Amino acid sequence: MNAIPVPSVTFKDVQAAAARIKGLAVETPLVESPALNERVGGRVLLKLETQQRVGAFKFRGAYNRLVQLEGAQKQAGVVAFSSGNHAQGVALAAKLLGLPALIVMPSDAPALKVANTRGYGAEVRLYDRLTESREAIAAEIAQQRGATVVPAYNDPHIVAGQGTVGLELLAQARAAGADLDQIVSPVGGGGLLSGISLVSKELSPRTALWGAEPSLYNDLAQSLEKGERVSVKPTVRTLCDALESPSTGDITFPILKRNLAGAVGLTDPEVAETLRYAFATLKLVMEPGGSVALAALLTSKVAAKGKTTGVVVSGGNVDPELFARILKGEV
Amino acid sequence: MNAIPVPSVTFKDVQAAAARIKGLAVETPLVESPALNERVGGRVLLKLETQQRVGAFKFRGAYNRLVQLEGAQKQAGVVAFSSGNHAQGVALAAKLLGLPALIVMPSDAPALKVANTRGYGAEVRLYDRLTESREAIAAEIAQQRGATVVPAYNDPHIVAGQGTVGLELLAQARAAGADLDQIVSPVGGGGLLSGISLVSKELSPRTALWGAEPSLYNDLAQSLEKGERVSVKPTVRTLCDALESPSTGDITFPILKRNLAGAVGLTDPEVAETLRYAFATLKLVMEPGGSVALAALLTSKVAAKGKTTGVVVSGGNVDPELFARILKGEV
Repeated sequence: MNAIPVPSVTFKDVQAAAARIKGLAVETPLVESPALNERVGGRVLLKLETQQRVGAFKFRGAYNRLVQLEGAQKQAGVVAFSSGNHAQGVALAAKLLGLPALIVMPSDAPALKVANTRGYGAEVRLYDRLTESREAIAAEIAQQRGATVVPAYNDPHIVAGQGTVGLELLAQARAAGADLDQIVSPVGGGGLLSGISLVSKELSPRTALWGAEPSLYNDLAQSLEKGERVSVKPTVRTLCDALESPSTGDITFPILKRNLAGAVGLTDPEVAETLRYAFATLKLVMEPGGSVALAALLTSKVAAKGKTTGVVVSGGNVDPELFARILKGEV
Repeated sequence: MNAIPVPSVTFKDVQAAAARIKGLAVETPLVESPALNERVGGRVLLKLETQQRVGAFKFRGAYNRLVQLEGAQKQAGVVAFSSGNHAQGVALAAKLLGLPALIVMPSDAPALKVANTRGYGAEVRLYDRLTESREAIAAEIAQQRGATVVPAYNDPHIVAGQGTVGLELLAQARAAGADLDQIVSPVGGGGLLSGISLVSKELSPRTALWGAEPSLYNDLAQSLEKGERVSVKPTVRTLCDALESPSTGDITFPILKRNLAGAVGLTDPEVAETLRYAFATLKLVMEPGGSVALAALLTSKVAAKGKTTGVVVSGGNVDPELFARILKGEV
């Protein structure tokens, strides 16, 4: 029996995605803070996907995937499973394209993400992350409805869409006179970082690429060390709800393995401290999972001294109650 | 006896200030949110002075003032009085220029602002805002030391420096393909808005200019109505510590009177709701006083439907404890 071939994704796919999302996705700002530069002793450029539609980069890939559905696929609509940001991205893309969408979300997902997903007009089906399989639920619903399952990361169109972050980042860095020594990005399933790496290796091959992940979900670091995909049991919780995918995918991992310098893990206290720093000094709202690349710099887990670093802030959808507790130092 | 002539400020002064602060002040981003556009039914461009050094626009004017001191003036240093943002601006400008700085701050100023002012190396003298006169304290210290008093707004170099916000805003709006129908800015003493108005009337005369102020400190609205400067007794407190100046100045008011379409007042509950909106939807940290122009749009006190509006977000220095209470709806 032959193995099913894994679809490949290329730089050209990212360029095609950029043309599809143009004028629909926000070209998010790249900002620089003298205070942050001074703190790390280098030059840091922050790519603010918090300013993207739905407050996270996920809209890019979701729209690039959904806009390519055809005929009967469009009428049957889409099903996705997500802790929140992919959910919102798919829900909004479906709304803009006039498709029905059902999103399978964990019952302990941030309330803001669930509310926003419903706000974009999607149907939400909650599940228990410890006893139920979201993949099975989504597959069953998709079969019943003839709907298309939209994966959160392991899909070539999703990867290509997220890669547009890299296209913008490199162009904006160049416009700011910055030649990037390295790019650091949050990584969960690897859709965003694999997409960025396709762009970076094409346009700026000398730029080193780093993944930042929760230390309790350091499957990428383990996988890079072992040379093959390793899974983490998704039983523990971290602050980084957006990054609790047990492993990368068979599409994303080979790209990451080929292109990354490495991956570093961040603890909850380090992430909370980063959110407080972003609030007090940068005046930016970040969600825990969206801040781990910045956390990697602030903790020196990725050395930034004397370097020019692009940092992806991937999302800002954090519940106000949690953020208030973090501000008060209770988390 | 002849009256002392009031110094004038011109568009050329703002251009000269822009040359002086170039590379030292941040060219802050102008951002646009599809969600906000949808909410107000128009196009809104947010000028984020929260991303400026010291977290507020004040660094621009302070640096433009201090860099023009000469010889003995430089050695004797500077004295300023401020609730916080001007304090930080002067403190950082003095640090960069190697001048001693003493700042007179109210004892109930936000702790973050006091700490940051000290952090930039300035000496801080606290005073009781209800029983002491900050002007008298500053004047006395200045005389003792031979130091130069740096006013927070009623100074031509300060006005010119703050006006650089307008230069950037108009250029960035043009680059984004936006022809501004109106600009709304927070106003306290009027340094920022008078400076912006000098630029806007020169480069985009059709753009209407609006001031937004706390409704309990609506001295500008009263002054515009009466045609002369009116003062508000600074005895009440609002959330907007940055905008509690009792009146505009004899330099700033004539410019505002000539150039403004009007001024609107915002209540504390409206400001708190705006901060929560900025957090949840825009992923931006704003301080109360920095958010009043956005609040004017969200409350429709300045109509934005069908229009293209530039909104100045003037600062983001808010104590985490207060912000946490606002997020929890306790304020």
